[in-house]
Amino acid sequence: MSSIRIGIVGYGNLGKGVEKSIRQNSDMELVGIFTRRSPESIQAEVPVFSLNDAESYKDKVDVMILCGGSATDLPEQGPELARMFNTVDSFDTHARIPEYFASVDEAAQGNGHVAVISTGWDPGLFSLNRLLFESVLPEGNEYTFWGRGVSQGHSDAIRRVEGVKNGVQYTIPSEEAVAKVRQGENPELSTREKHLRECFVVAEEGADKARIEQEIKSMPNYFADYDTIVNFISEEELKANHSAMPHGGLVFRSGVTGEGTSQIMEFGLNLGSNPEFTASVLVAYARAVSRLAKRGESGARTVFDIPFGLLSPKSPEQLRKELL
Amino acid sequence: MSSIRIGIVGYGNLGKGVEKSIRQNSDMELVGIFTRRSPESIQAEVPVFSLNDAESYKDKVDVMILCGGSATDLPEQGPELARMFNTVDSFDTHARIPEYFASVDEAAQGNGHVAVISTGWDPGLFSLNRLLFESVLPEGNEYTFWGRGVSQGHSDAIRRVEGVKNGVQYTIPSEEAVAKVRQGENPELSTREKHLRECFVVAEEGADKARIEQEIKSMPNYFADYDTIVNFISEEELKANHSAMPHGGLVFRSGVTGEGTSQIMEFGLNLGSNPEFTASVLVAYARAVSRLAKRGESGARTVFDIPFGLLSPKSPEQLRKELL
Repeated sequence: MSSIRIGIVGYGNLGKGVEKSIRQNSDMELVGIFTRRSPESIQAEVPVFSLNDAESYKDKVDVMILCGGSATDLPEQGPELARMFNTVDSFDTHARIPEYFASVDEAAQGNGHVAVISTGWDPGLFSLNRLLFESVLPEGNEYTFWGRGVSQGHSDAIRRVEGVKNGVQYTIPSEEAVAKVRQGENPELSTREKHLRECFVVAEEGADKARIEQEIKSMPNYFADYDTIVNFISEEELKANHSAMPHGGLVFRSGVTGEGTSQIMEFGLNLGSNPEFTASVLVAYARAVSRLAKRGESGARTVFDIPFGLLSPKSPEQLRKELL
Repeated sequence: MSSIRIGIVGYGNLGKGVEKSIRQNSDMELVGIFTRRSPESIQAEVPVFSLNDAESYKDKVDVMILCGGSATDLPEQGPELARMFNTVDSFDTHARIPEYFASVDEAAQGNGHVAVISTGWDPGLFSLNRLLFESVLPEGNEYTFWGRGVSQGHSDAIRRVEGVKNGVQYTIPSEEAVAKVRQGENPELSTREKHLRECFVVAEEGADKARIEQEIKSMPNYFADYDTIVNFISEEELKANHSAMPHGGLVFRSGVTGEGTSQIMEFGLNLGSNPEFTASVLVAYARAVSRLAKRGESGARTVFDIPFGLLSPKSPEQLRKELL
């Protein structure tokens, strides 16, 4: 069986994660990285091409994995590249998913390609579990907790406070709230009860730490509705202990069957690296895309449309024998 | 949209669970129960028919949910009913799945029906998660824990001990082992370290409890390899507190991406009633079966072949908007 030939569009944290993930999948090979920047400016162990030349790789790449951002890159690149290639992306601007799906679907259908949009873990695996859970337990409550993980938006907000040199913010699920859900108590949880926020802040020399702490804790939208812990640390400590990008979370359904029988379903992720994990999900879906394209399918798809059997390198017979 | 018309074959705990689950799904209606026993002998709020007359309901039932046992009922009923109907079952004799799949596939294909075999939670949702987890994290270790739940086989074994009037056995995952896995320690766990066994035993009057306890704890295959707790209780207490059929468990993958980055995926169930939950899974898959049959597909399928979108009563547009 010939390898699935992958191209990566964009070489930030996610693109680098895809490169690493492909090395763990022996049925795949990486053709190269496609970038909007000057290819010479990028240090990589694989060939780097200009995104402008992508069209000439149409017959050399089976699936393009799009690793750009959802704000400006993907709305443009998604439909454009789905005209030329089978694609996978992690578009995550929730409110714009229907519109994005339509534009990618049109481009992919018109050119005989398959495009899986909005995969990763949220949207992606969390969405799949919410769907499974409510299909199996139509009567019940859903709970999602995020973290422990770095929130870029909240870290940026800290760094905008006067006197703050650097900072990182972690979103942390409340252990007490999680325990209540796990025990089937069906709690009504306020924003404050669901998550804590913990900040590691490097203050500028001579800055008023009490004022900084107060300003962070009272910041509307970002921190005011939460219990927030502010720790002041040195720049060295921040670099040493807070440079990783952990994340994760939990999706629960606390439902009932029959005459009030409690049934609890749970899915959880504890990720050492958010971008490396997201990349691994994209790579598994690239395998499914290449198979659907080989079957002659075309158009946009989401995780809801893809049977799990297509994610695995194993044959259906092998899966039934080993994993059912 | 017309309702999905369901028939139930077999009216034990699982069949009764299916009846209850259908009441929670407004797009379904229960045509009736099909039994090998005399229909008059069964107390039910819905029509009861003889399984021998099933053929005359071919045009009145969209999907038959087979609720018989895997040892003797399903190997015969699975292929036989797949000739006449679209079917769903929970065949769980792991070693015989390939053979069972082949016989149901032949019957279903030859008659234009769709048959989902071996669904429920294990096999079923646990199998799906093992497949997803290893597809996303090809390098890693898988852990499955079962419980806290009643094991019929172990309860039967207790009841065979001389001097035992009645008894129930719970399989319990070791909290310590689960915590180690959750923390990414990748422990090597012996049988004894993974699960405990707790027994609630009603002794006959005058029986030697010390001897009973010793006999249970040293029973080969069932208890000797485990730490076992034996509690003696009264018949009344057993009836009052140990008549439910709770079960559940946890599937983990503790994997690595990139240069040794830890990534942990987890799926868990905490079920107040094992048969009612299994029934709810069968009912969700019955919806998928009816849709696949409407598309003109035929043959046997497993959970690995069914996209989650087909399990939900919602349209693909609604799913993308609400759940992605």
